[in-house]
Amino acid sequence: MTDDYQPRPADKFTFGLWTVGQTGRDPFGEATRPGFSAPYIVRKLAELGAYGVNLHDNDLVPIDATPQQRDRIVAEFKQALSDHGLALPMATTNLFSDPAFKDGAFTSADARVRAYALQKTMHSMDLGHELGAQTYVFWGGREGTEVDASSKLLDALAWFRDSLNFLAEYSQSQGYGYRFALEPKPNEPRGDLFFPTAGSMLGFIATLDQPDLFGVNPEFAHDTMAGLNFTHAVAQVIDAGKLFHIDLNDQKMGRFDQDLRFGAENLKTCFFLVKLLEDTGYSGPRHFDAHALRTEDEEGVWAFARGCMRTYLMLKEKARQFDEDPEIQAALQAYRVDDEELARLTAKFSPENAEALKNRTFDREALGRRGPGLEQLDQLTVELLLGLRGAVARA
Amino acid sequence: MTDDYQPRPADKFTFGLWTVGQTGRDPFGEATRPGFSAPYIVRKLAELGAYGVNLHDNDLVPIDATPQQRDRIVAEFKQALSDHGLALPMATTNLFSDPAFKDGAFTSADARVRAYALQKTMHSMDLGHELGAQTYVFWGGREGTEVDASSKLLDALAWFRDSLNFLAEYSQSQGYGYRFALEPKPNEPRGDLFFPTAGSMLGFIATLDQPDLFGVNPEFAHDTMAGLNFTHAVAQVIDAGKLFHIDLNDQKMGRFDQDLRFGAENLKTCFFLVKLLEDTGYSGPRHFDAHALRTEDEEGVWAFARGCMRTYLMLKEKARQFDEDPEIQAALQAYRVDDEELARLTAKFSPENAEALKNRTFDREALGRRGPGLEQLDQLTVELLLGLRGAVARA
Amino acid sequence: MTDDYQPRPADKFTFGLWTVGQTGRDPFGEATRPGFSAPYIVRKLAELGAYGVNLHDNDLVPIDATPQQRDRIVAEFKQALSDHGLALPMATTNLFSDPAFKDGAFTSADARVRAYALQKTMHSMDLGHELGAQTYVFWGGREGTEVDASSKLLDALAWFRDSLNFLAEYSQSQGYGYRFALEPKPNEPRGDLFFPTAGSMLGFIATLDQPDLFGVNPEFAHDTMAGLNFTHAVAQVIDAGKLFHIDLNDQKMGRFDQDLRFGAENLKTCFFLVKLLEDTGYSGPRHFDAHALRTEDEEGVWAFARGCMRTYLMLKEKARQFDEDPEIQAALQAYRVDDEELARLTAKFSPENAEALKNRTFDREALGRRGPGLEQLDQLTVELLLGLRGAVARA
Amino acid sequence: MTDDYQPRPADKFTFGLWTVGQTGRDPFGEATRPGFSAPYIVRKLAELGAYGVNLHDNDLVPIDATPQQRDRIVAEFKQALSDHGLALPMATTNLFSDPAFKDGAFTSADARVRAYALQKTMHSMDLGHELGAQTYVFWGGREGTEVDASSKLLDALAWFRDSLNFLAEYSQSQGYGYRFALEPKPNEPRGDLFFPTAGSMLGFIATLDQPDLFGVNPEFAHDTMAGLNFTHAVAQVIDAGKLFHIDLNDQKMGRFDQDLRFGAENLKTCFFLVKLLEDTGYSGPRHFDAHALRTEDEEGVWAFARGCMRTYLMLKEKARQFDEDPEIQAALQAYRVDDEELARLTAKFSPENAEALKNRTFDREALGRRGPGLEQLDQLTVELLLGLRGAVARA
Repeated sequence: MTDDYQPRPADKFTFGLWTVGQTGRDPFGEATRPGFSAPYIVRKLAELGAYGVNLHDNDLVPIDATPQQRDRIVAEFKQALSDHGLALPMATTNLFSDPAFKDGAFTSADARVRAYALQKTMHSMDLGHELGAQTYVFWGGREGTEVDASSKLLDALAWFRDSLNFLAEYSQSQGYGYRFALEPKPNEPRGDLFFPTAGSMLGFIATLDQPDLFGVNPEFAHDTMAGLNFTHAVAQVIDAGKLFHIDLNDQKMGRFDQDLRFGAENLKTCFFLVKLLEDTGYSGPRHFDAHALRTEDEEGVWAFARGCMRTYLMLKEKARQFDEDPEIQAALQAYRVDDEELARLTAKFSPENAEALKNRTFDREALGRRGPGLEQLDQLTVELLLGLRGAVARA
Repeated sequence: MTDDYQPRPADKFTFGLWTVGQTGRDPFGEATRPGFSAPYIVRKLAELGAYGVNLHDNDLVPIDATPQQRDRIVAEFKQALSDHGLALPMATTNLFSDPAFKDGAFTSADARVRAYALQKTMHSMDLGHELGAQTYVFWGGREGTEVDASSKLLDALAWFRDSLNFLAEYSQSQGYGYRFALEPKPNEPRGDLFFPTAGSMLGFIATLDQPDLFGVNPEFAHDTMAGLNFTHAVAQVIDAGKLFHIDLNDQKMGRFDQDLRFGAENLKTCFFLVKLLEDTGYSGPRHFDAHALRTEDEEGVWAFARGCMRTYLMLKEKARQFDEDPEIQAALQAYRVDDEELARLTAKFSPENAEALKNRTFDREALGRRGPGLEQLDQLTVELLLGLRGAVARA
Repeated sequence: MTDDYQPRPADKFTFGLWTVGQTGRDPFGEATRPGFSAPYIVRKLAELGAYGVNLHDNDLVPIDATPQQRDRIVAEFKQALSDHGLALPMATTNLFSDPAFKDGAFTSADARVRAYALQKTMHSMDLGHELGAQTYVFWGGREGTEVDASSKLLDALAWFRDSLNFLAEYSQSQGYGYRFALEPKPNEPRGDLFFPTAGSMLGFIATLDQPDLFGVNPEFAHDTMAGLNFTHAVAQVIDAGKLFHIDLNDQKMGRFDQDLRFGAENLKTCFFLVKLLEDTGYSGPRHFDAHALRTEDEEGVWAFARGCMRTYLMLKEKARQFDEDPEIQAALQAYRVDDEELARLTAKFSPENAEALKNRTFDREALGRRGPGLEQLDQLTVELLLGLRGAVARA
Repeated sequence: MTDDYQPRPADKFTFGLWTVGQTGRDPFGEATRPGFSAPYIVRKLAELGAYGVNLHDNDLVPIDATPQQRDRIVAEFKQALSDHGLALPMATTNLFSDPAFKDGAFTSADARVRAYALQKTMHSMDLGHELGAQTYVFWGGREGTEVDASSKLLDALAWFRDSLNFLAEYSQSQGYGYRFALEPKPNEPRGDLFFPTAGSMLGFIATLDQPDLFGVNPEFAHDTMAGLNFTHAVAQVIDAGKLFHIDLNDQKMGRFDQDLRFGAENLKTCFFLVKLLEDTGYSGPRHFDAHALRTEDEEGVWAFARGCMRTYLMLKEKARQFDEDPEIQAALQAYRVDDEELARLTAKFSPENAEALKNRTFDREALGRRGPGLEQLDQLTVELLLGLRGAVARA
């Protein structure tokens, strides 16, 4: 399949080792396919046109590896990255698989677990830096509760903050230069996770010692699980200057974490998301935090990976068409009403502006009668997505 | 019914005019009961033991009232407040009922609508101040989209911010001294509202010119609609020092906005919420933004209002019992593990602390084996809620 | 816009009077556009290429009309149908708007309300027959509860059954020949409605006196509100021989009833649904039970109606392409594994077949290793939907 | 803890081997506690006061056990049941863990998998019978799709039906006397499962060859995941005479399958459910299909099991109090309005009854004005649940 939607490294597509390496194990069943070695994943992703690969510490180095084993594994992996020209832009810590973290890592009620989580993260930050990572992600997979009788909600927030403040200084003292990207999720594996949405992460960042070092790593599936509009969430993150990384995948609302192939479920939302990222000049990795369906064998895994990237590129091309479609652009222009005099009065408060505004007469009923043309605009968008406005757009 | 759960003004319970005054109209049917006059509501709420009443501008003054009508209505209402000793701690603007706001107020794509929304809010702030309000709430009922092809997401956030900055200065220039409380909601009446959760409001406040003037007005039903844990949301708001007001009611997850009687649905969550508010010394109004079921007549309305307050007081008493229950307290103590040496190492970053922590040995397996006793703690809580631990607690 | 997607009466598209006639009133705001007269709607739908129009009794005849008024209104409406060549294939009763039905119609705890609901439905069935309706729909908008302490669950089911049995006999005794289509919905306007899903209606039908007279009227938005896969629901209804009518629209999961334009939200699910209806030869009306966004004026209403029909036709064309795409068809063929010998053994129980099957050896591991190619098949479908497989399909 | 809520075998509480034996493995982490041997579980459940234990074939016998191993394991297990006086009322098949079933068992597109599923189920039915099981449950954990492009929806329903028909005859030919209980679930582990709700199972049963042999095994968490009212679902199943078994646990709506301790989340719904089961004389097992939180060690597992049973008994006692509370009973009586004459007219259709009903005059406005007292009734129920109506009830 060679066509205009062939991914290239310049497209900045990345995958996690844990994504294409996922083996299909789930709560109700065993693995359905073997895992791949990290170097093999590197080779395959490079062949498919990806830009980079990301990892949790234990995706590469087993939690019980000796220093010697660790060094050998890392050396082989670096060689593979170098051989295949793949970047490693992001690293993160696995603070959720090991039973030690079963009731939280940075928010455990056990001080020893919290200290161990700090230790593990420092080592993982060392590893990430060694591999070239510039972004460090925090996803608190076990930071949550099922039993609020535990009475630790406020302590948990304080513990989490203390940990992030500590680790930011660690990064600085080591000269790592990391930008930290915090990843929200509403629930699963815990009944309720502490930072459920992109917004809650933005709110939390404002309470940190060095908020400028911290941004958000929003994930399509995560806000979508809570039935939220992911494009809206990302827009707020961009508005706050905090889009440090992004996790792309797909998901049905109100159910378990599916991590579907990008575009597999919500084509229209994916379109608006791609358009937003491209329009605002987001230059970071387009990271696919997804995995092939459990039904699939290896061939299905690479079909999945290729599909993620192709759909992104197809939607990017649709975004270009949207911007060039005269009927759509006319509808957009008609949608907005500007008013220079009002712009002057409302731009900035002054007692005079306020007074003038308070005394002005508005034709409330006329404002309510005006049709904004949104049904038509939306229908044109649907027809564009279906590929049935090509002729019109070219006319 | 005279017992220990009789509400008194010192309990700080408030209702909106629009809550007990709701007439039962819904998308599928007509009003089932007559509205009450504002003075009548004031009298009845005072009789029931409430502390105060809140309002949107148009709950009291019709949108098309003449200045003379407005002044007469306001005078009568102030007299009623005074006669019955009811406070009016909070006011807000209706920016959602009139067709002019159908596609947004501060985030409308029509500059005239945005200006009109500013005007209407200034007038409403004048009214609120006249009636003694100290908190001013913003709920952006129409600030959202169904059609993201409208391509206004980032502009909408900027417009909303500009409006809030303007109005904060208006409040200051008038000497009103308002604290502003922003109220999030995930959806309804719009397909997706711009600030869906308490967290997203916290994140937005950090981008305002005068963040100290702004806090959050979280509503039980709103975060719950998105399937989020409302107690967690309020804890984050408290942690950020931003709990300026709170809207209490109840709701099933993942459905239309129900505004049920407090405690009608999620007794356990309501318990943890009441405990959190009481434990952290929240001193503001306990505002019930709920309404009687559409099936009810006037008697049902007052039963609803009484029920909201009684359930709060009952849960407050349960919170006291929880704190005095020796078995529960023992379980809580066993749940936490402190460690003085680790506390010293993790409290504040220093290269020495980091190094010591990195070199420390943790018994990962022992940490994972330890049982925190959460099932038992939770079961004890359930039995306390059911009133079946009285004997134990008294022992 | 004249192209291949121009609707014609042969496409069997219908709308309800209440759909294009919806005025935009919602729980938080007033109407934003005037209603249209029934004859005007008839004319406009005919112009747009619709096949027919449907109604609730009170969409046409006010609940308090005199017999003379009723007859005049009906005569004018029949004339309009005749003038414009529009059919009226379906009628139903409004048992939800009037306060009398606030706690249920057929399931009210008040025997007088139940009797009045029967009376109102008989009159409405008379009206529907007079207008040519052959399908009669039951949507129990108020048949549900918020307060299960009412202790009427089992009685409510019995009352509902008694009413349907009664009305089926009424239809027969009058010679109306109606087929009854029961419409499920999970919630809204009641907290929980009694028959929440298409499946629950199938289950209920099996308990009726004359199950053959009853089928289902599944609605896209309704099962989708509960997060269910609507195509699956319709497949089960078809499998049971019970697809008597269908309501098409769109909806996000886990929120209030949106009644969006068909295809506005879930393009892929809409595609599979259209394909299922076309593949199985469903010959009834494609009824759009949706309405224009509240933001829209009259022009927006007709854009909405046109959009529903165009998107259906576009997806129908995509379904044809799917069937003719050689790569997709090859993937489908590879997906299935047939086995003649096993087909013989499993087709019908016999002791010999069971014994042979029990003794057979299966290569469990090989069965688990096989990749079904579903990621690739799904990606091909996405690309077909995006209009980017035309070239391939034509090759 | 010895009090009135001590479970006894007569209470008919059962657990699955897989429930108290669950090890805490989840999609994001490893097991946190060791599994228990089946005989050990039997002993512990007997000590706790349970009535019985249930199993999937592979909970007891590994999928790759030799016949000799199988026989030894089964003998030991029977001995344990006998030693401790525990019943085994229900058995079922694990058709979801093995990779062979990754794309469905009875609904796989691979005829060999379907045949193997039949084989495995027959062997499992043999095992269940040997252990005394009288109810056989079907939960189709993998019977669903993520990719509806697979185009197998109608075939899948037919394959599933053929399998059930086959197995029903197998049971009869062997003289096993099983009653089959079908268990619905909306999603997880598949994106969408084919029979998502209790209602859909009722609907499907009506299409089987021998519907009388089949009933439903509704599970609290499963309908609740879809945001449905589980008490309503069970009421419909009871109304249809199809409550063959029940799975009790708890769950928040709109998220992953939590399998929480009974009563851990929705106390009020659990109360209405217990009341419904007790009021209608359900005499089958109260089966807890739940597991301890992943945080817990062995002690937590038994606390969990004890808690499930205690909460059931506490709610059963509350149900008794509800029936004896004079104020509640008065409210219930006032809620209902009977009318003898109308009862005669509506009981059974006749042309005369229909005519009389059509001509009757109803006071529509009076019917709409009447207040049913539901807010007060609900508040009384809440206060009863909180244990704060004891004094009143005793008065």
